[in-house]
Amino acid sequence: MDSHMPDEGTAYGLPAGTSRSELTLVTAGTPGGEFLRRYWHPVGLASDATERPRPVRILGEDLILFRDGCGRAGLVYPRCVHRGTSLFYGRVEERGIRCCYHGWLFDVEGRCLEQPCEPEAGKKMRDRVRQPWYPVVERYGLIFAYLGPPDRKPLLPRYDLLEELDEGEFLEADDSSIGSGGAVIVPCNWLQHFENVMDPFHVPILHGSFSGPQFVEQMALMPEVSFAATDRGVKCLQVRKLEDGKIFNRVTEAVMPTLRLVASPRVTRYTRASAVGWVLPIDNTSFRIYVVGRVRKPGEMREGTSRYEGKRWSELTAEEHQRLPGDYEAQTGQGSITLHSEEHLASSDRGVALVRRLLKEQIDIVKAGGNPMGISLAADQPPAANQAHGNQEVVRTEAGNYLVDRDADRDAAQSGGPER
Amino acid sequence: MDSHMPDEGTAYGLPAGTSRSELTLVTAGTPGGEFLRRYWHPVGLASDATERPRPVRILGEDLILFRDGCGRAGLVYPRCVHRGTSLFYGRVEERGIRCCYHGWLFDVEGRCLEQPCEPEAGKKMRDRVRQPWYPVVERYGLIFAYLGPPDRKPLLPRYDLLEELDEGEFLEADDSSIGSGGAVIVPCNWLQHFENVMDPFHVPILHGSFSGPQFVEQMALMPEVSFAATDRGVKCLQVRKLEDGKIFNRVTEAVMPTLRLVASPRVTRYTRASAVGWVLPIDNTSFRIYVVGRVRKPGEMREGTSRYEGKRWSELTAEEHQRLPGDYEAQTGQGSITLHSEEHLASSDRGVALVRRLLKEQIDIVKAGGNPMGISLAADQPPAANQAHGNQEVVRTEAGNYLVDRDADRDAAQSGGPER
Amino acid sequence: MDSHMPDEGTAYGLPAGTSRSELTLVTAGTPGGEFLRRYWHPVGLASDATERPRPVRILGEDLILFRDGCGRAGLVYPRCVHRGTSLFYGRVEERGIRCCYHGWLFDVEGRCLEQPCEPEAGKKMRDRVRQPWYPVVERYGLIFAYLGPPDRKPLLPRYDLLEELDEGEFLEADDSSIGSGGAVIVPCNWLQHFENVMDPFHVPILHGSFSGPQFVEQMALMPEVSFAATDRGVKCLQVRKLEDGKIFNRVTEAVMPTLRLVASPRVTRYTRASAVGWVLPIDNTSFRIYVVGRVRKPGEMREGTSRYEGKRWSELTAEEHQRLPGDYEAQTGQGSITLHSEEHLASSDRGVALVRRLLKEQIDIVKAGGNPMGISLAADQPPAANQAHGNQEVVRTEAGNYLVDRDADRDAAQSGGPER
Repeated sequence: MDSHMPDEGTAYGLPAGTSRSELTLVTAGTPGGEFLRRYWHPVGLASDATERPRPVRILGEDLILFRDGCGRAGLVYPRCVHRGTSLFYGRVEERGIRCCYHGWLFDVEGRCLEQPCEPEAGKKMRDRVRQPWYPVVERYGLIFAYLGPPDRKPLLPRYDLLEELDEGEFLEADDSSIGSGGAVIVPCNWLQHFENVMDPFHVPILHGSFSGPQFVEQMALMPEVSFAATDRGVKCLQVRKLEDGKIFNRVTEAVMPTLRLVASPRVTRYTRASAVGWVLPIDNTSFRIYVVGRVRKPGEMREGTSRYEGKRWSELTAEEHQRLPGDYEAQTGQGSITLHSEEHLASSDRGVALVRRLLKEQIDIVKAGGNPMGISLAADQPPAANQAHGNQEVVRTEAGNYLVDRDADRDAAQSGGPER
Repeated sequence: MDSHMPDEGTAYGLPAGTSRSELTLVTAGTPGGEFLRRYWHPVGLASDATERPRPVRILGEDLILFRDGCGRAGLVYPRCVHRGTSLFYGRVEERGIRCCYHGWLFDVEGRCLEQPCEPEAGKKMRDRVRQPWYPVVERYGLIFAYLGPPDRKPLLPRYDLLEELDEGEFLEADDSSIGSGGAVIVPCNWLQHFENVMDPFHVPILHGSFSGPQFVEQMALMPEVSFAATDRGVKCLQVRKLEDGKIFNRVTEAVMPTLRLVASPRVTRYTRASAVGWVLPIDNTSFRIYVVGRVRKPGEMREGTSRYEGKRWSELTAEEHQRLPGDYEAQTGQGSITLHSEEHLASSDRGVALVRRLLKEQIDIVKAGGNPMGISLAADQPPAANQAHGNQEVVRTEAGNYLVDRDADRDAAQSGGPER
Repeated sequence: MDSHMPDEGTAYGLPAGTSRSELTLVTAGTPGGEFLRRYWHPVGLASDATERPRPVRILGEDLILFRDGCGRAGLVYPRCVHRGTSLFYGRVEERGIRCCYHGWLFDVEGRCLEQPCEPEAGKKMRDRVRQPWYPVVERYGLIFAYLGPPDRKPLLPRYDLLEELDEGEFLEADDSSIGSGGAVIVPCNWLQHFENVMDPFHVPILHGSFSGPQFVEQMALMPEVSFAATDRGVKCLQVRKLEDGKIFNRVTEAVMPTLRLVASPRVTRYTRASAVGWVLPIDNTSFRIYVVGRVRKPGEMREGTSRYEGKRWSELTAEEHQRLPGDYEAQTGQGSITLHSEEHLASSDRGVALVRRLLKEQIDIVKAGGNPMGISLAADQPPAANQAHGNQEVVRTEAGNYLVDRDADRDAAQSGGPER
C-alpha cells in the first residue's frame, strides 16, 4: 500500500467470461444439441418404465416415460396433443396412455386410438392427430431413446465389454451416477465431466493429496501419459512404474458422443474394463450418468463408490465437502457452464483439448449434413471402425488396467493390452 | 429399429409452442388486462379488510387492503407516495392509514391528511400529493374493486341468484377456491379454469373414470350437449336421460368477464343454481375463486368440496395427486399458460371455442373504445340484458339442475327450467 | 359509486416506476460502481481470513478470502485461472492457496508458484499466468479491500474517532450490521440505508410512535434540524430543547463513500461519537454494515442493539415485524431498489437530497477522470480535508451527542461541539 508502483494482475477490469456454447449447449437446434441427437441416449433403467407415468428430462426436453399393458416402453411429449394437459396425469392401459382430461388414448408411437368425447370415439378425426413421441430400445437393462431426425436414426451400438461375458458374469445397470463422485444429478454442464475422462493428471492431486488416497496406492503415482485418437473417440494411456519393476498400463477411453470407458481406479484385478458409462446431458446445466457393468454378484457395481474419510458423499457436512473435494466439487466448482475464455490450458490439458477438438469436428460434420463418428445406419452399413474388427455389430474397445513385465510390452498395451 | 422407413410423428423438430396472449394476459396495458379492468372484481372477503394492512394481488397489481377506524375499506398502491416505503407496515387509524417511515396519513381514497415532519403538518403541500388508490364496494360478503379507467366505472351488478332468497336462506361468501378442485391459489392462467366451465365433456372422464365418481351417479352419464350465446356470456345445456325415463337438464353459464354459474354437480336438489363464482386472475399465471352462495346453515358452502378416495385434496400424497387427478391437476397440467398453438380442438371443444370467441370480441370492443358486454354505467343506463328482463338492476340467469318429465320441456329448460 | 364524477388519483394508468441507476448500481462498469471502486471497503473481520477459504461478495463481485500460513490475508477471484474450479475448494498452505483440481498454487497477490502436473512444476509457464486478486489491508480489526483501478489506489484513511482513544478504551469490530435495525444482510440497495443517515425526521415517527420509544426519551422530541456540506460528506445538526432548559445538540455525518458516523441514539453520555460504520454494498440489492467502535469492555458494541417490546429483531413473529417496523422494514419496504420516479420529496427530505446530490457530483468527477472526495493517493498528498486539520493522515470528524447550556453554543456545536 505504500508502494508507488501500481499493483499488477488485479481483478479490476476483468472482462466478463464466455463459454464455448457450440460445445456445451445440448438443447434442440444448437450445434451440440443436434450432434448429440444423432445418437441413442439412456433415458432410464428398464424398471423406470412402468404403468405409472414418469417424467424424464433429456437434452433439455421434458418427456413422459411409461410401459403399456403389453410391455412396450413409450416415450412421449408431455402435453396432450388435444388440449395440452400433461400425460403425467395419464392412465396407462393395455394399448397405451390415456389423458386424464378428455380421455384421448395414445399408443407408444403416439397414434391416437380413442377420443371418447367425440362421436364414434373420434373415428373420423383421431387419425389426423399424433402425440409427439420418440423411439426407444431396451438393452443392457437400460432404455435408450433417439431424439434426432428420423431419417438419420442409427443402429443402437453393441460394445464388446458388455457383449462378451466371462464365466459367471452377468450385466447390472446403475443410475446412481457412479463416476460423478457425488449426487445422482450433477448441476453443471455435461462436458465438464466428459472431458475429465481424458484428464488423468487430476487423479493424484484431487483424488490423492486432497481427499486422501481415494483409490489404491498405485493410482497416486504421477503417470507418464499419452493420448491418441481412436476410430470411436480418444484414448489415454497412463504408464506407472511400480516398485517391483513391473509396469502398470492403464487405458481409459472417451467414446463419442458421451461414453466413458474407465476401468476401476481401485484396480482389484489387472484386466479389461468392466463397465460402460453414458454421461446423459439432462439439460445445458445438469447431467447424470448411467452405467452398465459385468458383475459376479448383485449390487457389485456400487461397491466402489467413493468414500471420504470413510463417509459416503451424501453424508458429508458442508465443511467436509469443502475440505475433501472430489470430482463433483471440482466440476460443479467450474460453474454451471465453465467460462472457457478464462482458461489457461497447459501441457497436462492436452487430453481435454483433444476431446474438445474431436467434438468440434463431429459437430461441424453434423452441421454440414454428414453423419458423425460411430454411426451405423443399418446392419449392412456398419461404421468403418467395426468393419476393421471383422464384426459388423460390436464396437471393440481397449480400456482397462494392464500389468506388463517388460517395457517392450508398452506399445502393445496401447492397442488393447496383452492380457485380454 | 430395423425398419428402413423413417419414424413418423416424432417430437423432433417440434416448433416452440405459443399462447394466445391477447386472451390470457391480465396485467395493465395488455388487451385482456384492459378488458378485465372494465369490471369489478372481488379482492377479498369483507372480513379481510381490517386494521391490519393486508397485501393482495389482483390482475398482476400488488395492493394493500385495510379498513379505517370509521369502517371504510380502502385499497391503495403499496408504495407510499412520499418515499416509497410499503404501507404494509402502515398503521391504520380512525381516518386512514399512516406510513411508518415519516408518518404521512392517507384516507381510503388516497388523500393525504397529515405530513407530521413538515411545517404545520404539511398544510401547504399535502393537497398536492395523492396516494394512488382504487374504489371498492362491499356486497354479498365480498369486497369488490374497480381497477379500470375512472370514467368507465360501471355499476356493480346484482345477480338474481343472490338477490332472491328462498325462505330460510342467507348468503355465505367463501375464498377457498371452491370449484378449482384444489389449492386456494391455483398456479396457472385463469382462462384455463374459465373455459373449463363450458367444457362439460371432461366431467365423465376426469371426474368419472379417473378420480372415481367424484359427483353423483347421474353426472357420470355422457350428456347430450348444446351451447348458446346469452346477453351476458355463454350457456351450456346438458341433457341426460335417466333410467327412470325422466330427463335431467343441467344449465351452466360463463358470464362476462369471469363469472361461473355452476349448479352443484352433486345434485342434491333439482333447482336453480345456488351460487355465483368469480374467477379472480391474481396475475398472468395464477388465479383463485371467490364464491357467494345461498345456504341454510353456516359452513354449508364447503360441504361439497371434492373428495378423492375419501381424502381432501390437501391430504393427498404426490402419488395420489398423480393417480387421482381433478380440475386442479388437469388445468395446471396445461402449464402456467397453455400453448394454444399445439392444441387440436375437436367437436367436444365447441363450448371452449365459444368462450374464447366471445372474449376476443369483447376485448376487441374495449380496444376500439367501446363498453363490453354487461356494463351499466349508471342506474338509468342499464345494459340491454337487464332491460329485457324489465329490471334495471338485477342480472337474470338460467343456471341450475332441472328435472323434466317429457322431451317437450327441453326447450323450456333452456330459458331457466320449469321448476323455478 | 353513484357519483357521476369520475374518481381522481386512482392507480389506473400509473406509469412504471424507475430508479436512479447511476446512484444505486454498484457493479463493475456502472457509474456508481466505479465511484465506489475508488475507495477501500471492509470485506470481513480480521478473524474471517483463515486457512478455510471463505466466499465473500462485495460490490457485486464474488471473491475468496483466506489467510496463508505466513499470516497474510488474500482476496482472490474465485475461478482458478487454470481450468476455472473454485478456489473455495482450495487448500491454504504456507505460501498461498492451492486449487483442488490440478494443484496450481497461488500467493496472496495471485502469483502462480507451482503447477505440479506440469514439467518442473510449471517452471516455464507459471510466471505467465496470474490469478486475479485484490489488495487488502488490515486495520481496526477489519480487512479492507480495494477493487478499483490500480493506479488510483488511495491510502486507507484513518479516523480520529478510532485513532484517539480515551483512557481505558480499546477498539472492537462488529459485523452484525448494527444500525440496520435487523438482519445481518439487508435485502435492499445500500443507498436506502445510507441516505437514511441524513434523515433525522424519521426518528420520532418510525423509532418513536411506531415501534414504541426504541431510544431514550429525548430522541423522541422532534428536533430543529439543519444540514451542511463538509469536506468529507454531509453533516446534520439536530437541536432539541430539553425540559431543564439545556440544549441537546446531535451531530450525525454521512462520509464519502459509505461511512455513517452516528452517535448512540441511546445517549448514555454527551460526547463525541464512539464508532464508525461502513455500509458495504454486497451487490445492487443487498448490503451489510461493519462497525468499529471504542469500547471499555468486550461485547459492549452490541449492547445497544434495538429491542421491540423487549424482543430482539430475530425473535419477532411476522405479525410483530409488521406491527413494529424499524429501519430494516422501512428500508426494505421501499423495494429492492426504490423507485425514485414515484417519490415526492418534501422539506424534511433535504438531507436525503443533499446526500444524493453529493454522490452525483462525486460520481461525475470519477466519470470525468478525476479523484473523488476524501482520496489521498500518497502520504505526502493528503486530501485537503486532512491538511486543514494540520494532520496529513487522520480524518477529523464532528459526530456526537453534545449538551450545551446556552443558545450561543449552538454554532460552536456545528464545528464539533465544545465538550470534546
